[in-house]
Amino acid sequence: MNRAEVSRATLGRVPMYLKYLKDKNDPGGNISATALAKELGLGDVQVRKDLAAVSGDGRPKTGYNIGRLTAALEGFLVGGDKTKVVLVGAGKLGSALLDYGGFDEYGLEISAAFDIDAPAKKSVKPVYDISELEGFCRKENIKIGIIAVPASAAENVCRRMINAGIRGILCFAPCRLEVPEGVSVKYENMALSLAHLSRTI
Amino acid sequence: MNRAEVSRATLGRVPMYLKYLKDKNDPGGNISATALAKELGLGDVQVRKDLAAVSGDGRPKTGYNIGRLTAALEGFLVGGDKTKVVLVGAGKLGSALLDYGGFDEYGLEISAAFDIDAPAKKSVKPVYDISELEGFCRKENIKIGIIAVPASAAENVCRRMINAGIRGILCFAPCRLEVPEGVSVKYENMALSLAHLSRTI
Repeated sequence: MNRAEVSRATLGRVPMYLKYLKDKNDPGGNISATALAKELGLGDVQVRKDLAAVSGDGRPKTGYNIGRLTAALEGFLVGGDKTKVVLVGAGKLGSALLDYGGFDEYGLEISAAFDIDAPAKKSVKPVYDISELEGFCRKENIKIGIIAVPASAAENVCRRMINAGIRGILCFAPCRLEVPEGVSVKYENMALSLAHLSRTI
Repeated sequence: MNRAEVSRATLGRVPMYLKYLKDKNDPGGNISATALAKELGLGDVQVRKDLAAVSGDGRPKTGYNIGRLTAALEGFLVGGDKTKVVLVGAGKLGSALLDYGGFDEYGLEISAAFDIDAPAKKSVKPVYDISELEGFCRKENIKIGIIAVPASAAENVCRRMINAGIRGILCFAPCRLEVPEGVSVKYENMALSLAHLSRTI
């Protein structure tokens, strides 16, 4: 199965399924998509599709074996070794990302941050001078970077990341980046979820 | 048209269309969805669907009048008066949200933040003691709140927001909130976009 083919929405629900199944603590038991949907207050069809995308193991009538489904969901989320990521820009947003505990459940880890004023930044993770970015990424074989600098500096950081061998960039700066083929950029707009929410009330 | 029916992904692309059309500065001209897609490096069908969701004005062959399409996209995004929002929790993430300039283009505005240690927080926006939350929300008729406190405090903040008349909550804390019918909660997982990106490279 191609891991990339799963939607962002499915990916967002997998930790919820996993938590529920782990709390249930009944690896020998069975559970149907319908039962799981009911317990979590989700749509039946949605849960059925999500589980089918992650595990081909479900059976009509009996549903999924809980132990195997848990293992499949975990394998899907974390998928082997931790994926190491670098962050450039250790301002307010960057610091919040460094403190954020939610990367772990997706098998991701921010290895280090880089900033133009590294000594001034306090963090649980190392914050190095931006001049060390390329050396660090090559040495640690980092393929993913987060840009949390102002828009005016983002293009330059992006270029440096690509030179350092990075193939995937998550950009929080409000700008568009020019990247060569083979490099993916995702833009994170912090207003978007709020805008979407404001339309539902 | 029901504003809520537009997907998060469409909502995320609208500012891009708007920026392109404004930069073009040709309100009397026409543009087709195909041309717009090509210029922005997006899929033809995607752009066609997005524009159709926002404006019923496109014509076969000639496309959209640029001035009317710009107005429709702007009206769709901002839709009249600014929507006022409160933020609870002015830590690193909360401060980053207070500084964030991207709410404006969606017609949203953080009116004030609330914190248990308000005097210690420096921000361009007012930060009040949490005890003032209910009074402020009622007085300003605030219907949307952002929770940026630790998970352990989120349930209590959520209850207070609902008592204060809030109907939509964007929650950054890693938890599940119990809310009565008629209140919407969206959970913002800052790891999710990165996890999705890491699967595409």
